[in-house]
Amino acid sequence: MRTPSERAELALLLEVAGAPKPGNVDRDRDLADLRFEQFLAGAVGARNGLERAADAAEPLGDAFETAVVGMAEAAGTNTQFGCLLLLTPLVRTAATGDLTRERAAEVAESTTVADAAGFYRAFEHTEVAVGEPPDDATRLDVRRGANAVPVLRERGLTLYDVMDLGADGDANAREWTTGFPRVFDAAERIEAADGPLTDRAADAFLRLLAEAPDTLVVTEHGEAVAEDVRQRAEGLVDAEESAVRAFADDLVERGVNPGTTADLTAAALYVALESGVSVAGVTTDGEGSGGGDGP
Amino acid sequence: MRTPSERAELALLLEVAGAPKPGNVDRDRDLADLRFEQFLAGAVGARNGLERAADAAEPLGDAFETAVVGMAEAAGTNTQFGCLLLLTPLVRTAATGDLTRERAAEVAESTTVADAAGFYRAFEHTEVAVGEPPDDATRLDVRRGANAVPVLRERGLTLYDVMDLGADGDANAREWTTGFPRVFDAAERIEAADGPLTDRAADAFLRLLAEAPDTLVVTEHGEAVAEDVRQRAEGLVDAEESAVRAFADDLVERGVNPGTTADLTAAALYVALESGVSVAGVTTDGEGSGGGDGP
Repeated sequence: MRTPSERAELALLLEVAGAPKPGNVDRDRDLADLRFEQFLAGAVGARNGLERAADAAEPLGDAFETAVVGMAEAAGTNTQFGCLLLLTPLVRTAATGDLTRERAAEVAESTTVADAAGFYRAFEHTEVAVGEPPDDATRLDVRRGANAVPVLRERGLTLYDVMDLGADGDANAREWTTGFPRVFDAAERIEAADGPLTDRAADAFLRLLAEAPDTLVVTEHGEAVAEDVRQRAEGLVDAEESAVRAFADDLVERGVNPGTTADLTAAALYVALESGVSVAGVTTDGEGSGGGDGP
Repeated sequence: MRTPSERAELALLLEVAGAPKPGNVDRDRDLADLRFEQFLAGAVGARNGLERAADAAEPLGDAFETAVVGMAEAAGTNTQFGCLLLLTPLVRTAATGDLTRERAAEVAESTTVADAAGFYRAFEHTEVAVGEPPDDATRLDVRRGANAVPVLRERGLTLYDVMDLGADGDANAREWTTGFPRVFDAAERIEAADGPLTDRAADAFLRLLAEAPDTLVVTEHGEAVAEDVRQRAEGLVDAEESAVRAFADDLVERGVNPGTTADLTAAALYVALESGVSVAGVTTDGEGSGGGDGP
């Protein structure tokens, strides 16, 4: 694993392979309209955009748009939009120096209006679940896609500014504007753990879910549901895997998909891979623990 | 999915995700010393070499060696050596024209002594299970790695010639020297099937296993075991998945790993992807069937 874009692609793959990840597609579960193999294809398709993100000469917004287009074409749906929104600035940070919280914050803060335009254009390539914009921001509704670009220019809004507008309702945007604290904290937990990375991914997911209400769940089901999911996740940290699997079944039955927590997990895996964590360095004692239940 | 190297990488991922694939790592099973996540990393790491394979200006043997080095570094072990041996000429064929049996045979036949040297060097980067060479070919034992290169030069042996020497004992080598007939036939079955590609991968694997004794099993356990495995696979084509899973458990318990059949499956998936099969084009009726058993 030699380059940031390779590690970012692997982070996408390890994220979806981590199981159980309640409410999400994982190694053990396809959803009715979203299959594991689509995430594999989405990760492969995103790589070119991730390579552009690693090139300091490329506008970050263009790199993100390229990654989203590649993902959407390959997967035929939106598999990893939120993951890529977090990975793009982190890959740029790693490719241009040390991947620290401070430098990642600087990369986010140094984005431009052109980067914001790339972000808006990305929404034209795939369906993304988003909340209603505030009343005073309907002209900046991301669902307007490229139509919002003149407004961005008029107001001089950078990609950082756009994230700042969304930070209240979207945990990914909040990471962007606060130096990616939850991502780096989760990465430290992944680094400190042992065993297969897919198991660490599942554990990181559950702890992130316990930490704060998933903002995609807030958007789709409201704050009460999201807080209930958070509390139940909190009660399951360090619980038996069977209890986590029962929780997973319940979320899937109710159509509750904590997708933003999966995004944070992928980004945390990426930071951990950059810090030297590797599937090659894992030792296990006997039969692997990942995914297998067999007959 | 825009390029041959992207499709080849996806084929590697779909192959390992296909389940059940008796005796092999799959979406539902890690082996004691070989985990699913290592195959994910191996596929990512191989991509640069696959990109070189798509570039007609690059010697095919160098491209193969690059793919193996990238795979071995990323996975920390040999996950996909045999897959890459089949994918490399097929990617070259697709990248330079139509991916037909005839053109693939021509690509194999047009390899050089330098390509053979790259193949031998590749053995220095990872452990590969191989049989004993014939008595008159010990100087060409692949385990000699680069030490065998002067012998290749002396005798003017191309990569095709080297494959021809191995064609009796290795199904991958046999594909190389006969126009990849089993790969293309299996690809046609994958194209004609429907449902998730990971399910089609598992079906393709079982049919290939039923078709001829797995040559890795012959090398490791002898012809009688390989023929027994073949016959049992033959009896399970179109059987209930639970019966296939019981067979899988038995093979794993006995340490029987039909790895060459997995190589053929990956190559067949690649050919199918080149022909237009796509995870984006799959429709399923309700809850996905891939991998999930849940609690």
